Order: sequence, then C-alpha cells, then structure tokens
Amino acid sequence: MADVGALAFSRSSRIQALLDVEVALTEALADSGVVPVSSVPPIRAAARVELFDLDQLDEDARHAGNIVIPLVHQLTRRVAVADAVAAGHVHLGATSQDVMDTALILQLRTAVDRLLRSLDRAADGAADLAQRYVDTPIAGRTWLQQATPTTFGAKAAVWLEAITRGRRRLAAALDEALVLQFGGATGTLSSLGEAAPIVERALANRLALSVADIPWHTQRDRLAGVACALGITCGSLGKIGRDIALLAQTEIAEAHEPVAAGRGTSSSMPHKRNPIASAVSLAAAVQAPGLVATMLSAMAQEHERAVGGWQAEWDTLPALVVLASRSADAMADTLPHLVVDPARMMVNLDAAGGVARAEGLMAALTTHLGRREAQVVVERVTAQAISDKRQLQDAAADDPVIRQCLTIEQIAQALDPANSAGAVGSFVDRVLRRWMRDRKQG
Amino acid sequence: MADVGALAFSRSSRIQALLDVEVALTEALADSGVVPVSSVPPIRAAARVELFDLDQLDEDARHAGNIVIPLVHQLTRRVAVADAVAAGHVHLGATSQDVMDTALILQLRTAVDRLLRSLDRAADGAADLAQRYVDTPIAGRTWLQQATPTTFGAKAAVWLEAITRGRRRLAAALDEALVLQFGGATGTLSSLGEAAPIVERALANRLALSVADIPWHTQRDRLAGVACALGITCGSLGKIGRDIALLAQTEIAEAHEPVAAGRGTSSSMPHKRNPIASAVSLAAAVQAPGLVATMLSAMAQEHERAVGGWQAEWDTLPALVVLASRSADAMADTLPHLVVDPARMMVNLDAAGGVARAEGLMAALTTHLGRREAQVVVERVTAQAISDKRQLQDAAADDPVIRQCLTIEQIAQALDPANSAGAVGSFVDRVLRRWMRDRKQG
Amino acid sequence: MADVGALAFSRSSRIQALLDVEVALTEALADSGVVPVSSVPPIRAAARVELFDLDQLDEDARHAGNIVIPLVHQLTRRVAVADAVAAGHVHLGATSQDVMDTALILQLRTAVDRLLRSLDRAADGAADLAQRYVDTPIAGRTWLQQATPTTFGAKAAVWLEAITRGRRRLAAALDEALVLQFGGATGTLSSLGEAAPIVERALANRLALSVADIPWHTQRDRLAGVACALGITCGSLGKIGRDIALLAQTEIAEAHEPVAAGRGTSSSMPHKRNPIASAVSLAAAVQAPGLVATMLSAMAQEHERAVGGWQAEWDTLPALVVLASRSADAMADTLPHLVVDPARMMVNLDAAGGVARAEGLMAALTTHLGRREAQVVVERVTAQAISDKRQLQDAAADDPVIRQCLTIEQIAQALDPANSAGAVGSFVDRVLRRWMRDRKQG
Amino acid sequence: MADVGALAFSRSSRIQALLDVEVALTEALADSGVVPVSSVPPIRAAARVELFDLDQLDEDARHAGNIVIPLVHQLTRRVAVADAVAAGHVHLGATSQDVMDTALILQLRTAVDRLLRSLDRAADGAADLAQRYVDTPIAGRTWLQQATPTTFGAKAAVWLEAITRGRRRLAAALDEALVLQFGGATGTLSSLGEAAPIVERALANRLALSVADIPWHTQRDRLAGVACALGITCGSLGKIGRDIALLAQTEIAEAHEPVAAGRGTSSSMPHKRNPIASAVSLAAAVQAPGLVATMLSAMAQEHERAVGGWQAEWDTLPALVVLASRSADAMADTLPHLVVDPARMMVNLDAAGGVARAEGLMAALTTHLGRREAQVVVERVTAQAISDKRQLQDAAADDPVIRQCLTIEQIAQALDPANSAGAVGSFVDRVLRRWMRDRKQG
Repeated sequence: MADVGALAFSRSSRIQALLDVEVALTEALADSGVVPVSSVPPIRAAARVELFDLDQLDEDARHAGNIVIPLVHQLTRRVAVADAVAAGHVHLGATSQDVMDTALILQLRTAVDRLLRSLDRAADGAADLAQRYVDTPIAGRTWLQQATPTTFGAKAAVWLEAITRGRRRLAAALDEALVLQFGGATGTLSSLGEAAPIVERALANRLALSVADIPWHTQRDRLAGVACALGITCGSLGKIGRDIALLAQTEIAEAHEPVAAGRGTSSSMPHKRNPIASAVSLAAAVQAPGLVATMLSAMAQEHERAVGGWQAEWDTLPALVVLASRSADAMADTLPHLVVDPARMMVNLDAAGGVARAEGLMAALTTHLGRREAQVVVERVTAQAISDKRQLQDAAADDPVIRQCLTIEQIAQALDPANSAGAVGSFVDRVLRRWMRDRKQG
Repeated sequence: MADVGALAFSRSSRIQALLDVEVALTEALADSGVVPVSSVPPIRAAARVELFDLDQLDEDARHAGNIVIPLVHQLTRRVAVADAVAAGHVHLGATSQDVMDTALILQLRTAVDRLLRSLDRAADGAADLAQRYVDTPIAGRTWLQQATPTTFGAKAAVWLEAITRGRRRLAAALDEALVLQFGGATGTLSSLGEAAPIVERALANRLALSVADIPWHTQRDRLAGVACALGITCGSLGKIGRDIALLAQTEIAEAHEPVAAGRGTSSSMPHKRNPIASAVSLAAAVQAPGLVATMLSAMAQEHERAVGGWQAEWDTLPALVVLASRSADAMADTLPHLVVDPARMMVNLDAAGGVARAEGLMAALTTHLGRREAQVVVERVTAQAISDKRQLQDAAADDPVIRQCLTIEQIAQALDPANSAGAVGSFVDRVLRRWMRDRKQG
Repeated sequence: MADVGALAFSRSSRIQALLDVEVALTEALADSGVVPVSSVPPIRAAARVELFDLDQLDEDARHAGNIVIPLVHQLTRRVAVADAVAAGHVHLGATSQDVMDTALILQLRTAVDRLLRSLDRAADGAADLAQRYVDTPIAGRTWLQQATPTTFGAKAAVWLEAITRGRRRLAAALDEALVLQFGGATGTLSSLGEAAPIVERALANRLALSVADIPWHTQRDRLAGVACALGITCGSLGKIGRDIALLAQTEIAEAHEPVAAGRGTSSSMPHKRNPIASAVSLAAAVQAPGLVATMLSAMAQEHERAVGGWQAEWDTLPALVVLASRSADAMADTLPHLVVDPARMMVNLDAAGGVARAEGLMAALTTHLGRREAQVVVERVTAQAISDKRQLQDAAADDPVIRQCLTIEQIAQALDPANSAGAVGSFVDRVLRRWMRDRKQG
Repeated sequence: MADVGALAFSRSSRIQALLDVEVALTEALADSGVVPVSSVPPIRAAARVELFDLDQLDEDARHAGNIVIPLVHQLTRRVAVADAVAAGHVHLGATSQDVMDTALILQLRTAVDRLLRSLDRAADGAADLAQRYVDTPIAGRTWLQQATPTTFGAKAAVWLEAITRGRRRLAAALDEALVLQFGGATGTLSSLGEAAPIVERALANRLALSVADIPWHTQRDRLAGVACALGITCGSLGKIGRDIALLAQTEIAEAHEPVAAGRGTSSSMPHKRNPIASAVSLAAAVQAPGLVATMLSAMAQEHERAVGGWQAEWDTLPALVVLASRSADAMADTLPHLVVDPARMMVNLDAAGGVARAEGLMAALTTHLGRREAQVVVERVTAQAISDKRQLQDAAADDPVIRQCLTIEQIAQALDPANSAGAVGSFVDRVLRRWMRDRKQG
C-alpha cells in the first residue's frame, strides 16, 4: 500500500528510524563525555538507510532473532572503515530492544500525529454537517426499522462527538507513550556505570522524548494504550461508514459519498455508486479488534525481556496504525464532501404510511384523552394505516375519535417531522461547542 | 463464581440496577414537575428485585428482544395494583436502552471502584517488595536465558509501575464513562417536549452521573475505553503472574505464592505449591483480549440504535469486569505476602558457571585492555568455563591474560552481582515516588 | 439465560458431569479388577449433584485451583460415611484435569448434538425458501447498492449451503473431540501400574468415548477445532441474520421475521417489527470471534499441565457453545416461518428507475451493435434515466439508437428481471441436492 | 520479510495470480466457444506482472475500491494495442471478486502445500525424538512445578500428535476450499446466458479447482475454515516452542535449539543461546488468534457482495498464512536437530530432594500398609526431606516405618524414575503409528 499511514512504517522508514536512534545514542554518549565527540560524525555519516542492503538485513534478522543485531553489525563495519575508534562506540550501552522500542516510539509520533490531523479534517466535516442539517428531518432508525424522526444534524453530531473524544483519547495515549526505552541487557544500564543517568537524560533530550521511570522492556501497557486508542478510533469511524453505507442504499438514497471519476463506479453497472470510503472504514473496524487483541495478548511478557510476546508486536502495532490512518483518511476525504439529499429524507419518512411519526399524534391526543386512551387510539389508527396501505395522516383524518379532538390542520402539524426534533438542537449545540473548544486547544 | 467482582453483575444485581434507574427516572420526572410527586412512592415500592420472577423475565426477554420490556411490563402491572395513575408514569420518556445503558454505568461504577481498591492493595504489595529488595541480586533473564544480573526490587518496581499506570488509566476511563444515557426512542427526547433538558439534568443529579452531550446509543467509545483499560490491566497483572510462576518453578524456586492450608497443594504430591493466583492472572490475561476485541467489534452500530452490536455487549463487558476483578484480587492477595528467597537467587546466579555475571569482568578488564580486547578475553574464558563446567570465577583466575590485569580479589569483586545493579536504585526510587504521589491523590 | 444451550452448561449440569466421570471411573476400575465391585454402589449413590453445596464448592475451588479438588474431597467424605473402603477408591488414578476434561467432552456431546438438530431445522427452512423462491426476482445487492437482479431462492440457497457445510464441519470436529482424557498427574497413568491400559479402555467404554492416543492435557487442538467450528457456524448464521435485518428495513420490506404477540414489537411504535432473531445471530457473530481467539490463545500450554492457558478455557468454550446454540435456535425458529414479499421485491427493482436491470438491455443490444457500442448506448441511456428520474424502460423506448434495434416489447422483455436469473436454477439445484444427501446421512 | 511463506503473497505474486485467473478465464471462454481462440494469445502475452506499474495499480485501487478494476483496465489497454477484438474479451462474464477470490485460492494452494511439507519435516523431527527418548526420564511438570516423572519421548509424542492432527486438519480445510469463484456481478452468471455452466466447468478445469455449488461471494466459511486450521496449527506449534523455551532455561538446560554461528547468540553475553525458533513459534501463536478472529468477524457479509467484511479479509488471510509458514519452518528447522541432555534431566529430577518421585515410593508402601497409611507416611517423609533440604531417598532410608517395609535397595528402586514411565511406552507407540500411517498416505 502506498498510503500515507503505510509510509511511516515502510521497510526503509523502519530501518532509518533504528539508525536515527543509534546516531542519537552516540550523540548522547558524546554529550555525556562517555565517548569523544569525534565519534559522532563517522557514525552519523554511515547511518543512512540507503547504504544498507535491506534484503540481507531481513535474512540475517531471521537468524539473529531481531533486526538490530545485523544492523549494528553492518553499521559498525561501515564506521570501522572510516574510523576504528568510533566503530567501538556504536550501540554502546544499549540492547537491541532499546533501539527497536525507541525507534518504534519515534515512528508512532510521526504517524499518529498525521492521523490526528486526518481526524481533525473528518471532525470538521462532521461539524459542518451537524450545523447545516441540525433541523433537517430524517427517519430515526432502530434495529434498522424506522422509529420516531430525528434530524440529520443529530446523526452527524453523534459522529462528531466520537471523533472528538477519539482524537483526545489517542493524543493522550500517544503522549503517555512518548518515552525513551533505554536499559541495556536487563534494564539496569549497568554497563554505563555512573554515567547511566546522564546518558539517559541526554538521549531523551536528543530525541525529544520523556525519560521512563524504569525501562519497560516487558511492561507494554503504554503501547497497548496506543493500540486501544487506535482500535476505538477505528470502531467510531466504522460506525460512520456503516451509517453512510446504509443511507446510500439504492432504496434509501439519503446520502452518498462524493462522486469522482472512476471512484466506486462500475462500467457494467453505471448506476452504482459504491461507498468506497465507507468500506475502507468498515473493513478497518473489522480488522482492528483482532490486532488490538494481539497487542493485549502479548502483554504477559517474561522477566526482563520476553520470548514471543515482544516479537508478536513487531508486525501488529504498525499494521494497526496503518489501518487506522487509512480509515481516518477515508472519512476525512468523505465527510466534508458528503452528498446529502434532504428531500429524499422527507420522502422516506412517508414510507409505511408515515407511521414512524405517530409519536407526535399521540402527544397531541394526550392533552385531550389522557396518555392511556391516546395510546389505544394511536395504535388502532396506525395498525389500520399499515393494513390499508395508506398514509397515517389520512387514516387519522378519517378517525372519528381523533377528529373530535383535532382539526385536519392540527393532525398535519402533529405529524410534521419538523416538529419532532425534540431536544436535538441543544444536543447538537453541546457537541459542537466541545469540538470547537478542543479544536482551539489543538 | 461467587467472587466479589461477579456479585456486582449477578442476575439480581443487574435487575435491581435497572429498577433503580426506573425509580430515579420517576423521581426526576417529579422533580421536573412532569409527573406528580405522588407517583414516586408506589413505583419505588414496587421496584425491588425480590418481587420479580427472574426466570420469567429471562424467558420473556428472549421474545421481546431485551429485558427492560418485560421488566417495565411487570413493574407497571405491580404499580397499577396500588396506584393506577402512577402506573401511567412508569418509564415515561425513556427507551429500553436508556435504562439498560444507565444501569450498566451504575454497575460499572460500583464494580470498578472495588477493582481500583484491589489494585491499590496489589500496588502496595509490589511497592513493599521493590523497596525491600532494591539491592537483592537476581539473575536478569531475557528470552528465558540468564543475562546480566539485576535486583529483585527492580523486577517488583516494573510490576508496580504498570499497576500504577493501569490504575490511573482505569480510573480515567471510568470517569469518562460515568454519563447518563437518556434519549428516548431515537435520541431526541421528543416525547418529553420542552421538559426534556430539565428531566435530563434532574435524572443525572439523582444518579450522580454527568449529562452526556448527546445520547450515545450507538457511539460506544466510552464503554470501549473502559473495556480497553480493563484489558490492559489484565495484561499487566498477567505479566506479574507469569513472572511469579516462572520464579516459583521447582528448579528456580526464588519466590512463591503465600502458603495456606489447601492452597495450591496436592495430597498426592505434597511437595507441590501450585501458583494458583498466578494462574488466575495468567488466565485472565488470556481471556481478556478476546472480550476487548468483542467490545471493539461491536462498535460499528447502525443508525440510532443497533441490531446486533449493542446486544453483543451485554454479556461481554460484565464478563470483562469480573475477569479483571478476579485477577486484581489474586494479585492483591499475593503480592503483599509473596515468599521471596534471596539466598536462592544468589545460588541461581552461579548456574552455568556464573557466566551471566561476565559483564562485570569485562568492565574491569576494559580499563586495562580496551573494550575490544577485553571482549575477546571474556568470550574466551566464558566459553571455557561453560565447556569445562566450572565457575567463571575459577576459570578467570586461571587465565594468564586476566591475571596480568586483575588480582583474585579484583576478579571476585568484578563478578559480584551486588556490584551489577547499575542505575536500578534510581529507577526503583522514581517508580516508588510516582506511586506514593498517586496513592496520596487517591 | 434459561435457553437450551445454556442448560447443558449450568452450574449443576457441570458438577453432575464431573460426578458422572467419577462414577464411571470407579466402574471402570471395578471392571478391570483394580477395585472391588462393592465400591461402586456407595460412590454412585453419593455422586448426585443435589447432595452438594455448590456455593461452598465454588468458594473452595478458588483456593484449591480447580473445582475437582474440593468435589473429590466432599465426595470422599460422603462415601466414607457409608463405606470406608469405597472411599479409598474415589478418583483413583486420575488427576483433576482428567475429570474436568472428560466431563467437558460429555457436556459438549450433549450440547452440540442439540445444536446440530437446530441447524437441521434452520437448514430445512432455508431449503424450503430456496425451492419455493427459486424463480422470484429480487435485486441483487453489492456494496449495499442494487446491482443486477438475482432470485430470492438463490439468496436462500447461499444461506443453506453454509449451514450444510457448517453442520458437517461441526459434526466432524465434535467427532474428533469425543476422546477420553485419562493420564493421571503427568499423563503416564503410572499410579495404575500394569492395569493402566485396561482401566483406560474400560473407562472409555463406560463413557462411550474413544481412547486418545496419548493424554492431551496440554494439546488442546481438538477443543480448538470444536471452538472454530462453532465460530464459523456463528459467522454463517450471522450472515443470514444480516441479510434478513437488511431486507426487513422499513424502506425495503422484502422479508421479515415471523410475527408473534409481543415479539419485536414496541407499544409506543406499533409499526415496528424488530428483527429479534437476526439480532441474536448478529450478536453471536460479533461475540464468537473473540471467544474463538481466546481458545486459540490458550493453546501454547506449558509442559504436562498448564498454568493459565487451561484455566482460560473454563468459561470460554461453554460460553461459545451457548452462543452458537442461541444463534442456531434463533434461525431455526425464523427461517421456516420467514415472511417473504415477492411483490415488494419487484417494486424495489424499479427503484432508481430500474437501472439495476440494465444488463439485460445490454445483452439484447450486443447482438445488434457489438459489445462496445452496446455498452456506450446503455451507459448513456442509464445516466439519462437517473438524471431525469424516470424509468429506464421509458428512457430506452425514447432512445433512437435503441429503437432502431429493438421494439417496445423487446425492450420490456430485455428489462424483465424474470429473464435475469442466469444459471441460478442449476446453482440452487446443486445446493439442495447436497443438503438432501447430507440430511439423509444424518 | 523474505521468508518462503511471504513470497507466495508478495505484491508481484498477488498480481500475477490475478492475471493467471484472467488468462484462464479467456481460455475457458475459448474452450466454450464464447470467444474465438485467437483472443487467447494476445491476452496471455499481456498478462505478465512485470509489464505492470504496481505502484500505480495500488494508487488506482484505492479509488476504484479494489485492485482488479484498474488491473483489468490496464490489461485491456495493453491487449487492445495488439488486438482490438481480444481486448473486448478480457474479463468477460466475471466480476472483480471472482478474480480476486479465485486468485486467492490459487495462492493458498501453493502456500499451504509448502506449509504442509514444513509440518512433515517438523513431525519427522518430533517422531524421531519420541522414538529415541521414549524411555528417557524427565520431570513431569504441571503448573510449572515438578510433578511425577514422565519421559522426554512422551513429551515429544504429545508434540507429534498435535502436528499430525494439525496437518490432516489443514489439508482437509484446504481441500474443501479449493473451489472456483465464478458468479458475475451478483452470482447469477447471467451475462453469459446459456453458456454459463459450460464456461464455469471449463474455467474450473483450467485451474484444477472444483466447481462450487453456488457462488460464495458472501459465504466465507471455507476461507474461515482454512484460517482456523492455520490458527490451530500456530497454537500447537506455539506449545512446542513454549516447552522448548522452558526446557532451555539456564537453570533447567534439558534441551536447547540447534547451535549455529550467530544464531541466537549475543556478543556481549556469550553464554546465551536464545531460543530463536521457539520465539518465532510463540509469537505466531500470539498473533494468529487475532487474525483468525478477524476472518470470523468478517463473515456476516451483506447480500450478494459485501461492504467491509470482504475487504477486511484482504490483508488478513495472507498474513495468517505467512505467520503459520514461518512458525512451521521454525519448528521444521529445530525439531530434527534439537539438542537434548538426558543427564541434565536426571539431575533435575533430584531438585527439591527428588520429591517429585514420591509416587513410586507410595506404590511400594501401599502393598505393605494400604493406600491410606502409605499416603500418610509418604507425606510425612516428603515434608521432612523438603524442610531438611535432603534427598527423599535418604530421608526414607532413615524412616523406621518405611524401613520395616522396604530395604534400602527397594527404596532406591521405588524412587528410580526409570520405573515411573507407566503406560508411556504404549502411548508413544500409538502416536508414532498414527503418524507413520498418515505419512504414508501423504
């Protein structure tokens, strides 16, 4: 896949991130006086991914157990050609996992930052829909059956608030995870002696990461936290995709994804507009839970460094970031341009005789008949409208009990979905205000 | 299971929580002037779980689609016997899901609060271990192989910091989830007319919950957030269980769970001390990920109320709370009483000739020979110790190159694991301080 | 839940199954001459669940590590009262896990057999639909968009074939799993000495199970196989539920679940017919994958008997059986009585101007214009029908190029969905024949 | 990753498989007389992956919704350059999913066949171990505690039988899945008219696949079946990896992975032999369940072709095959060369005073004292041995009650683990015989 999320975790990006950590380590060792400053330039010069044979690295990694072992080997040999002393300073004090974990954190920072910006775009799109359609009646649907009416703005606000919270949750999880991994073989940093805390601090500074209270080689809760936040985001975006795909059904046609040449169309079926972006988000919502479960399953890691659990994370967390990015991009490209058909929403409210709007009639009758009697009357007339396949409004107009209470105009008004929005206006307002606040805080 | 976590989600607790919400709703309606205050006592009187036929409710729920429908039916009939008017005020304005979701939130509050207290006990136990054994040498183990030494206090600190963070994460997720669900059929509260926001606020007050910005019938991210926090906690506790089970192996025997009559013992194998609590935590760590995945998979819910996704949550989230509670209880009962054998830890450091301590020797030789030469020498003497099955210390003492650099005493000192703690002291200190701070803030 | 699937795994059923295994073990020991026949009656008399304090057992199990330890303890004490010698023969040669695993197998046999019968009923219902509606046109829908027409019988046949295969797969997995667990403490049966193979064979005979090649305390692939077959079944049934829920949408209304008093209806929204059974199957399809994943995650079990993995199975496999049973029951109750509306299917084929049927027009034009030219013409007229919001048939009748090739009657015939069934007839036939064959073989 | 399993699912392999299906389709159309034979060569000539711009394809696939749409587009243009008529015959009658699903089946056939051969190698290795060490005593371990002795051959036989069954299960699942996907837009093959069944048969013949009873665009149980079989295999292999990693612990050291230069060694810790292959299998066992769960979660697919569920499979099933292949390769490379240390196994049996062997003593005493009394005596002397930290054999020799029953020699013999193998010999034999039989049938 060539998408943006994937780029951060391409093979060459991964290797370069590892090399960046090795360079920063040398710099930190020099900052701390453990190695001479002269060792930095030759290491920095050699630590460029384009100098490495990536296929060979993969091959060697399978024998060594991880990729840093052959990478450091190759790097050291390259440095040695230029500067034998510097070669002795490559990777000093670190264990492979220090480098792999820290590089992962750097990649997460880049990729999740991008993802947060996509969520912003998606949220802006949803906010615009919520605002614009706050009063636009649409059939509320429960169990995939028409229930009482709501507004399309309310639906969009429900989308928006989940993105808002998802964004905040993900940013917090990332923030918590932006810590250095640096412990050496068993998390004691013993090979650095007295210099350990100084190098640790210098390395964190070089990489703009926090110092961890203690190395976390086998305590993976912060990574699991990021994974969970990604998984929840995929779920919330999947809900939006589900709604759009359902609204876009040929028979419903209340909204559809923006049209573009060749986008979701079929040459043999020119009428189709496949909801491509929704499918991306739905697929991500199907895939993410399994990957989150893997990250959680991997947590019970042995002693100071694990056999199996850690290795299980290698493919999993990047895959999850890519998936969530793809889903966020899909919705960021869709929501601001969603094609909405308010007229069709109104037409659909007449489906099944418009009986979904019976609640308004009952409210109007309750003041005349009391709640119980009103309910009996409404149930009777609704059942009749369904069995006679006519509009509820007409059936009500013909009902003598109802007509003793209400005029034709009052019946029409009672059934007007525009009067059924209830408290939706204030709900949408609250959601929008929270988003604006979050948006400002960045 | 009769354990504490399970009690909060027993069938009768679940029903009572639903009834509590119905009572609070009537109170809120009365507070808001929508129904007379006189309707409250008869509803309150009838809303006691012991008055209901739970088997019949379950049976009816299968036909109705959820349990609130028959529950409200039974409740209304009961109230009607005492007060026909009050019967008309039962469940007014609410949809079944309002009641089920809000009751779930109430149960979560109770059960997760308990769980947090168990985590406190577990953390206190780990903190005590970290403090007490901060200088006690133990073999660091990576890939289940002895690597360089660390201290048992460091191991306990790694346990502690994950509990600390897990506790904070879970409390935050719970806090975010303590919101009222109240939207009526499609989330508009339209049947309450103008009174909707007043009743909403009154109901939230009655239940000491926050008002949600907008009904969240199909946006389940907050519940998913709680599920994830529970899942991560299970993972972190599982790591502790894994470590204890490994340390308790007959051949290692460095720590074992507290002994009690009949606890993990076998009449036919009296020498065994099965790590019962560790197994509980390990099992929870195996089970939780699948349940978390289910909560995430259920998120892409349709329109205003879902068909399938919501229903999938009903068994899942309670099961997860019970599981996490069981795991936290197990570790809360174990960590404060863990039986630790520092002497055995020292003995095991001599396994395989004590070669795990070679790092200290290399450090000592580096000042004499330079890093490269020191490494060559150490590798040679280590390999020899292994192949000759003798202690590294003895092999080193016989090595002419080493003896040119170091005296017998210096060799012994270089190999003394008490000198290999590295920066562990400051790591443990940082972890303890953070826990103390969190502990104080409660 | 009081449903049938759950009954097999109620607490008392579980305990009785354990006791049944203990009785069978004594019988087998007597059959083999290891214990006197006189020991059987007192053990059998005491091994009745109603004699035991189940809450106490649960409580004790938490301390002992599993439930068989206190159960055997209680059982032995009970037997001792009547017959001290017999008391010495309780549980002879077995380990707790032998009893728990074998009891699980017995319960699986009962519960899965029931489940298979539900699948038969569901399949019969689907077969009837496939047969009856083999020629009934319905819009084919891809990406939730109308595509070319198919028939409702084809849809039902797709449901049927998955149930057919699911049934066979599940029966095979169960069959493979119907093996005795009997190995003693570490799978050697050493405490029975020479008698071991004789007792093993006798116990298998008593329980009508196969002898395993070797005890399988930590090789759980057969149980995982049953779990997977259950999970796949839930998935296939969930697909049926999804289709029904979608067909039952108010705006589509082509099929709905059978109506019964109080079933899926809402007093406040009398027009609704919530697809209750579909929701059950959809929920099961959401929940099952996580439980299957747990069974798979539990497989990497340590040495001769596990710490954590085995324990993780205890709740999981029963939950999965209950879930799958509930789903199968739901579809078994629904499919034979599904309410189908062929007229509505035909009406919906006219949605969006009936453009979903354009393929027939293209076929008719291809013989006159060649494939490329025909496609250009059809795309043009289809686009026009959509933009003008008129029926494709009318737009085609007004198109001069088309009218040079086809008469009005030929256009109508080309667009008649009754002519679009393609090879569906033979597909349905093949599916039905395979089901008949399987059904006969039982 | 460059490993064998991954190769089958590399980007270029995937594209070529799609092209292979397109070529076979043209051949089948020609075989059936639907298109002229002359259309085959130009299509075949153009259908070579090296002619395509893969990055562009990926880019276009994101807009089109799947990769076949732009692939067919590019292919058609290429063919058109050489032969305009043939260009009109590309992809005739098929829908994108026909091609993608069928290509997936072809890739599965290749990749799973390879995997089965790896399992054969792993099984041969396990069989050899089972045979060679059938009588070699080793501590049986339950809950990671030494229990009664077993033999290393029994352990290997438990490994073997799971591979044996896993192999058979996977072969059967693959066999069931080797069916053609061919249905056109909505599974009716209507665009091929009368020729449909003939083309279907011809295409199946060309690809050596079975004809499906009915197109299976949204019934994915056969793919789920393959996924499950892969998942179970990963679990069984993970159990082997777990055992090896535990046996290889520094303090236990009873077996370790074959040594090779640079394999699992650490330059800074030369004594380490990291169990690299075991980690691969353990990691696969952690990752596979989540991927299997995804395949199951994706099953509830909508109508004739899905929105989300199908798309979720694209990355998932290949990832699972690659994972399982990697795990099988790891064990196939390890088991035949596993380094086993029977002497060390015997030494470890003396751990904790050799009390794990107490069962033999009890058996010997039972004939003298009866079972109850014997148990009391053994428990007492065992407890004493543990508290005095001496060998059980010595403690027993000093016990007056025991010495009244047994001579020193008899005590020694009773405690000799060589006499504790129980029925292991026949168990191992049964497992080996089944494997030989399966192996022959191949």
